[in-house]
Amino acid sequence: MSLVLYDAPRCPYCARVRILLAEKGVELEVVEIDLSDRPAWLYEKNPTGRVPVLEEDGRPLPESAVIMEFLEERYPDPALLPPDPADRAAVRLLIFRDDDLTDPYYALRRGEDGAAEELDTVLGRFDTMLAGRPYLGGAEYGLADIALVPWFLRARDMLGVDLDRFPSLSDWLARLEERPAIAAEAGIVAAL
Amino acid sequence: MSLVLYDAPRCPYCARVRILLAEKGVELEVVEIDLSDRPAWLYEKNPTGRVPVLEEDGRPLPESAVIMEFLEERYPDPALLPPDPADRAAVRLLIFRDDDLTDPYYALRRGEDGAAEELDTVLGRFDTMLAGRPYLGGAEYGLADIALVPWFLRARDMLGVDLDRFPSLSDWLARLEERPAIAAEAGIVAAL
Repeated sequence: MSLVLYDAPRCPYCARVRILLAEKGVELEVVEIDLSDRPAWLYEKNPTGRVPVLEEDGRPLPESAVIMEFLEERYPDPALLPPDPADRAAVRLLIFRDDDLTDPYYALRRGEDGAAEELDTVLGRFDTMLAGRPYLGGAEYGLADIALVPWFLRARDMLGVDLDRFPSLSDWLARLEERPAIAAEAGIVAAL
Repeated sequence: MSLVLYDAPRCPYCARVRILLAEKGVELEVVEIDLSDRPAWLYEKNPTGRVPVLEEDGRPLPESAVIMEFLEERYPDPALLPPDPADRAAVRLLIFRDDDLTDPYYALRRGEDGAAEELDTVLGRFDTMLAGRPYLGGAEYGLADIALVPWFLRARDMLGVDLDRFPSLSDWLARLEERPAIAAEAGIVAAL
């Protein structure tokens, strides 16, 4: 079986897939895409021209949320979704509603008025959530953490957002960064 | 176990859940929401105030795409996703990108210039897709069909779009309407 990832270091959606592949120990070919000069053939693999695209045996699959589900099913070990359907649904809801986090993140990056306050409100909500449980999906580390951590790393290290104001969120991020897969991604962000 | 669906007949996202529950033979309590006067308590179950919301043992779950995955896992029989992860990913991609269909549908409903032509382009793409396979997910009926059929029914029966111009799409829709779960939904649309 051939497996190729079309990837870009600065893309947080790609980061999800990089982290997940590392957690699963999946080896594959990585093709780096220059986002400022996307090759024409990328649009044949994904009409939107976006990365990530994961290609198994020549069959291209775009959309990081869909790729994550695919990898979880194709490489079930270690399991990164909880066993119960209701708990799995709670994880999927966090991922489906990722724009709760990404909308204010991108607004801040564009320098929009009020964006810092809006992002702080969202960070506060995550802080409250993480005061009650060690990981976003509950007792165990998994897909919700992997799906959302790329924006927390970028908010802290690229936008200079002070996460120390959110102690449970900061503890969660420190816990995640003990994992080699997340530490590697933090290294990619630091080098951007 | 208690199971409640907060539902609205005219909502196509609710239609997905209604059809899927019927296919799975799941009995539950249905609470109809007046979309023109949403009750305040609905926002406690879903901060966006939208339906559908499926509530299992008092735990509310919004977002029809997430609810569909939940129902497929909680009530696995009959299976409505294909067995192979790559085929399942193709189904999920169609559902994830439902706005390819719903954006031009809503543009036409709002009477925007060029919307009819844009919707025709999309219908043509689905027609081409369905010329090569009997169902959106491949050889078998399943979640992709259920997720998208509500807009095809509404385009035909509420917006008066002539689907006979798309023969493979029309055949697919006729095939679907032989199923009691889809026929029941077509009846709901006809009564709107």
